[in-house]
Amino acid sequence: MPKISLKSNVLSKNDHIAQEIRSQLHSLGIWTINLIGSPGSGKTSLLEAVFSYFDDTGTCAVIEGDVKTDNDMQRIAARGVPAVQIQTEGACHLNAEQIKNKLSQLPLTEINLLIIENVGNLICPVAFDLGEDSRAIIISVPEGVDKPLKYPSAFASADVMVITKIDLAPYVDVSPLELKTNALSINPGLEVFCTSAKTGIGLEKFANFLLHTRKKSTQQNE
Amino acid sequence: MPKISLKSNVLSKNDHIAQEIRSQLHSLGIWTINLIGSPGSGKTSLLEAVFSYFDDTGTCAVIEGDVKTDNDMQRIAARGVPAVQIQTEGACHLNAEQIKNKLSQLPLTEINLLIIENVGNLICPVAFDLGEDSRAIIISVPEGVDKPLKYPSAFASADVMVITKIDLAPYVDVSPLELKTNALSINPGLEVFCTSAKTGIGLEKFANFLLHTRKKSTQQNE
Repeated sequence: MPKISLKSNVLSKNDHIAQEIRSQLHSLGIWTINLIGSPGSGKTSLLEAVFSYFDDTGTCAVIEGDVKTDNDMQRIAARGVPAVQIQTEGACHLNAEQIKNKLSQLPLTEINLLIIENVGNLICPVAFDLGEDSRAIIISVPEGVDKPLKYPSAFASADVMVITKIDLAPYVDVSPLELKTNALSINPGLEVFCTSAKTGIGLEKFANFLLHTRKKSTQQNE
Repeated sequence: MPKISLKSNVLSKNDHIAQEIRSQLHSLGIWTINLIGSPGSGKTSLLEAVFSYFDDTGTCAVIEGDVKTDNDMQRIAARGVPAVQIQTEGACHLNAEQIKNKLSQLPLTEINLLIIENVGNLICPVAFDLGEDSRAIIISVPEGVDKPLKYPSAFASADVMVITKIDLAPYVDVSPLELKTNALSINPGLEVFCTSAKTGIGLEKFANFLLHTRKKSTQQNE
């Protein structure tokens, strides 16, 4: 069974590095979240918008993952948040080694929240632990209500779901409630946020989740 | 270099089967198009809408690819178009062997157009020839203008781009013209269609492309 062994080895190596990352970040009092979503689901726009609810963006950093371009890193940096870019040059997901190699470029002694924005893909990033404490699925209203049923692993592996572009619901005949119901049928434990970067709906609540959770985590680690 | 050899072998086997499929379909006078796009880019809705411009949907068949569910096959079949579903059970793209195994379930002697709707993913399906004559990238307006720059391989490997959900442009501050310009900067040869399944914009033009091209192809093969 060479295919299975090869895959297992890759994942085992990745998981080992991910655990090292988690230990290192915990020892520094840093809480980490991994954002997974389709291309154009609004991951970067969500972050841009949510940062305006942070009193001090200097206590947060972002690792951006994309096949090509550093556009997203530039957008985040323009908000005063330390950011680095990983360009995968064709690869369909981030892996733990790439994260490990970028940590030295971040102000780790100054932050207590690390946000990783994965490559736009609802399938491949799911299998790769990046050392995160929390995993969020970002799904936009125009993608439709059936995506949790079609891509169940993504939703099953997450503990948070952020529905974005909720302002578009009236124009696309998509019910955010039905989308939420479908996601909860896959993973009843999902914490769900409904947001719009355009109108501001739900942003403060998601910002509070990030700020509260990292604070709780930091206190636990002290 | 074991990694490269393994990947080369997989692709070489896939390409060999794809060439067999292409030969078989050409011998039957069937023209094939492979639709690649993000989850929720509107591939199935585009097909549903475009079929209303076909005089005879019985001369067309669809192979649907999804990680899970046969929802899309059901939607296509409800339009009177022969359709079969491939559920990849976790895999991030269709491969030629899966297509080959499904051909016997299609009315090949009655059709002259085969449409393959790939798994929702803008990265992984690109490397896998399915025996198609044409490859179309389906991208929806809400995904944003920068996707051709971020996922260049998808756009470079296609000969057609269909922009969907163009009715949403005013609500998302996305310029379809800028999206088109970015795509053409990656691949100047792309034939571009701007469509809305909701308002009907551009559907007849895309239907005519499908009908005209298959007719031309059938005549060439006679």
